[in-house]
Amino acid sequence: MTAVAHRRVDDTDGRAVDLGRSVDVDTRSEALEAARTDRSGWRAPGQPLAVAKPRSVAEVVATIRWAARNRVTVVPRGAGSGLAGGAAAGAGSLVLDLTGLNRIHRIDPDDALAVVEPGVVTADLDRAARRHGLGYPPDPGSVEISTIGGNIATNAGGLRCAKYGATRDAVLALDMVLADGSLIRTGSAAPRSVVGYDLTSLFVGSEGTLGVVVGATVRLTPLAAHQTTIAARFADVEAAAEAAASIVRAGIRPAMLELLDAATLRAVAALDPDLFATPPAADDALLLVRTDGYGAAAEAAAVEDLVAPVARGIRRTENPDQAEQLVRARRLALPAVERLGAVLIEDICVPRSKLAVAIREIERISAEGGVRVFTFAHAADGIVHPLVLAGSAPTSAAAQAVPYSAQATADAIFTLALDLGGSVTGEHGIGVLKRRWLAAALDPGASAVTAAIKHALDPTNLLNPGKAIGSQDHPPT
Amino acid sequence: MTAVAHRRVDDTDGRAVDLGRSVDVDTRSEALEAARTDRSGWRAPGQPLAVAKPRSVAEVVATIRWAARNRVTVVPRGAGSGLAGGAAAGAGSLVLDLTGLNRIHRIDPDDALAVVEPGVVTADLDRAARRHGLGYPPDPGSVEISTIGGNIATNAGGLRCAKYGATRDAVLALDMVLADGSLIRTGSAAPRSVVGYDLTSLFVGSEGTLGVVVGATVRLTPLAAHQTTIAARFADVEAAAEAAASIVRAGIRPAMLELLDAATLRAVAALDPDLFATPPAADDALLLVRTDGYGAAAEAAAVEDLVAPVARGIRRTENPDQAEQLVRARRLALPAVERLGAVLIEDICVPRSKLAVAIREIERISAEGGVRVFTFAHAADGIVHPLVLAGSAPTSAAAQAVPYSAQATADAIFTLALDLGGSVTGEHGIGVLKRRWLAAALDPGASAVTAAIKHALDPTNLLNPGKAIGSQDHPPT
Repeated sequence: MTAVAHRRVDDTDGRAVDLGRSVDVDTRSEALEAARTDRSGWRAPGQPLAVAKPRSVAEVVATIRWAARNRVTVVPRGAGSGLAGGAAAGAGSLVLDLTGLNRIHRIDPDDALAVVEPGVVTADLDRAARRHGLGYPPDPGSVEISTIGGNIATNAGGLRCAKYGATRDAVLALDMVLADGSLIRTGSAAPRSVVGYDLTSLFVGSEGTLGVVVGATVRLTPLAAHQTTIAARFADVEAAAEAAASIVRAGIRPAMLELLDAATLRAVAALDPDLFATPPAADDALLLVRTDGYGAAAEAAAVEDLVAPVARGIRRTENPDQAEQLVRARRLALPAVERLGAVLIEDICVPRSKLAVAIREIERISAEGGVRVFTFAHAADGIVHPLVLAGSAPTSAAAQAVPYSAQATADAIFTLALDLGGSVTGEHGIGVLKRRWLAAALDPGASAVTAAIKHALDPTNLLNPGKAIGSQDHPPT
Repeated sequence: MTAVAHRRVDDTDGRAVDLGRSVDVDTRSEALEAARTDRSGWRAPGQPLAVAKPRSVAEVVATIRWAARNRVTVVPRGAGSGLAGGAAAGAGSLVLDLTGLNRIHRIDPDDALAVVEPGVVTADLDRAARRHGLGYPPDPGSVEISTIGGNIATNAGGLRCAKYGATRDAVLALDMVLADGSLIRTGSAAPRSVVGYDLTSLFVGSEGTLGVVVGATVRLTPLAAHQTTIAARFADVEAAAEAAASIVRAGIRPAMLELLDAATLRAVAALDPDLFATPPAADDALLLVRTDGYGAAAEAAAVEDLVAPVARGIRRTENPDQAEQLVRARRLALPAVERLGAVLIEDICVPRSKLAVAIREIERISAEGGVRVFTFAHAADGIVHPLVLAGSAPTSAAAQAVPYSAQATADAIFTLALDLGGSVTGEHGIGVLKRRWLAAALDPGASAVTAAIKHALDPTNLLNPGKAIGSQDHPPT
């Protein structure tokens, strides 16, 4: 825990302001610098005023009331593991660090739910649930570092999503502090309720622009009784994508359906040469399939029937250690690419039928621009993660002739996603980095409704301005 | 199709107003009377002005623009199969009958989705999907008569919900006409997208108060490859509820988990005496469990292991005809009770651990008030359907001494739901009939946010006033 310098904030006009006796604030330069960015690497212009470190809901309320009175914008922040700049705080803003609200209030094994504070690390909740034979379903890649509050702010997904749902599907009820400092409760602990508008779903994914999550009631699920893991190698990405589609079409509900392209496989092989019996060839693709629950064996047999005729090779195991070895290629994918240089970690989503063409087109964009891209996908959900190597120099003469960049490559990939009827972000959020895609990605009428809701709940644009949604300066009248 | 009288509306001041050459309106008395009510039987005070019968999105827009210009409130209506008065139209309002927008534009088997108009009957969509080996997941009891638009307005559920989700889970994107006549599109055909606020979830369940659904893109799911059905009789409702809870706790995901109480079983036996080999005893309860998919057999075996030691008798089948015979008790439940008199069909939801106590308390409330109540439940979701016999006379002397009524019985059941940490409506909606429960059922802050959103999107309270949410006369400033 960072030491706290003092409990006072000096605002932009140099006035010393006290947030209240009980709210710690940190104004040390290193704390302010850290709050300017997140895992995307994007840095907000200028330094925030201070980092407030509330330890209770009452302290969050006091902090937001202070900010509202003093017209200081508030940037909510969890672990700072976001990938779109959503928690990056710029000049004059107050960072609201929620990691101090990190208690698991209750795990209810009978009703399979948990009541938690926003600063709980997602994997910690999952581990606590496991002691009761339950698990927390969403599993973003950042699960060991990200917080429930951040997961809620971005509607985080993960590998288990296709079967077990994303964060929105797991949240039953929320305690939110709004821009006026009021504390409200949405939803119900009842498994289903249709009382009033679904404010819970509205707040999930709103990236801290409508309110601050200070408590959540989330669903847990029983741990799967059985598990089977299959790894299949294919001659090309089309064959792997078609196999993935055939699995979903057949009514199999895989707990994991991950596709890795040849570039990613080669990066993984470079990091761990012993992982593959035969080194990845130029056009290889890998499909990892996990089935779980009482039907795990039957579903795995059905997967094998579908995949074996078209795969180059196939391995299957019920042994947890061997299973971990099979999915090791997926776990190593991000570190294997990140050691090659700075990467843009993207997350387009395309209709499943467009998965193969999306990956092929990404390869073409990579080759034409001379910027290396490594792609893997949550195939059952159509989510494609192209890792665009930002640090690499253009490798083709054509690319060197034009000022091609990692960002231009990413932009070409976003255009591709929209052309294929997909989305520019399937699970990371808009944040700052994808705001300029909103005009193309969002219906103008939906943008107007978004602005009207933002204006209704936060008329002075206090909460996380410049994030997630379009211009907040001119709400419709 | 009702014949159309003319294309003009005479408003409350007697002025003849033309909705536009192309929009049919019906002002015959029988059409207006029919629009005053829905399947709940509640009748709105006074008669609506007219029933507009648009045949296209453009005609919906023209109708709403006309209404906005003339300050006539609009009551959207599908099949009128709602159970909370949400579509009941009162004095001076214009009914917007959407059953004329009933085309299935597209079924996409590759991406397992359908693009439909709101007036499509839900079962018709399901049947159209079946021709492609797919199904539409939500299955409200009204599936043969209700429309997709009405299902979206109420976030309708059903028997398959626990495994396959309610309507909100099935809706990917919406076309909505707002109170200002603008046409907007929410969501994305991509399986997952986190672009902007989740307006789709906000509109689903908003009961026509925020906009009118004119198009929807919905998920379909592959038809289950296998299916096993189990019927188990128990000595009492506690044993049945505990068995249901143990099934869910074990990680089994039943496609149906229906519990029927003794009163319901006796009503069913009275309708079809041959259905049960042994007539239902005083305290009997029945549990119907269906497993499906590749794991159907393994899950059914696990269900039997859990249930057999505690059940009085158990039957299991993979044969579709025999399965239909087993679930016949559930299918007959509503008609068996309805032939006894007018019923209030209620839909509280309680935490699963409270299912047995909820049903016991409902029995106590029924006995104390002398009003007959028949209860069955979607046990996996905690949804309890008490059918309160409105037509029956009090049967106990104590009840006759006080002016107890079906409504008082229902009110006692709603209080019970809230006392148990549950919800007053799990799948039917607030409509008109449960509005007075909003103060107790909804957090005041959430009510204020609801009013602010309503005011932002429909400042003149044009759309379905007096429904779904609290007072719309005084939105917060």
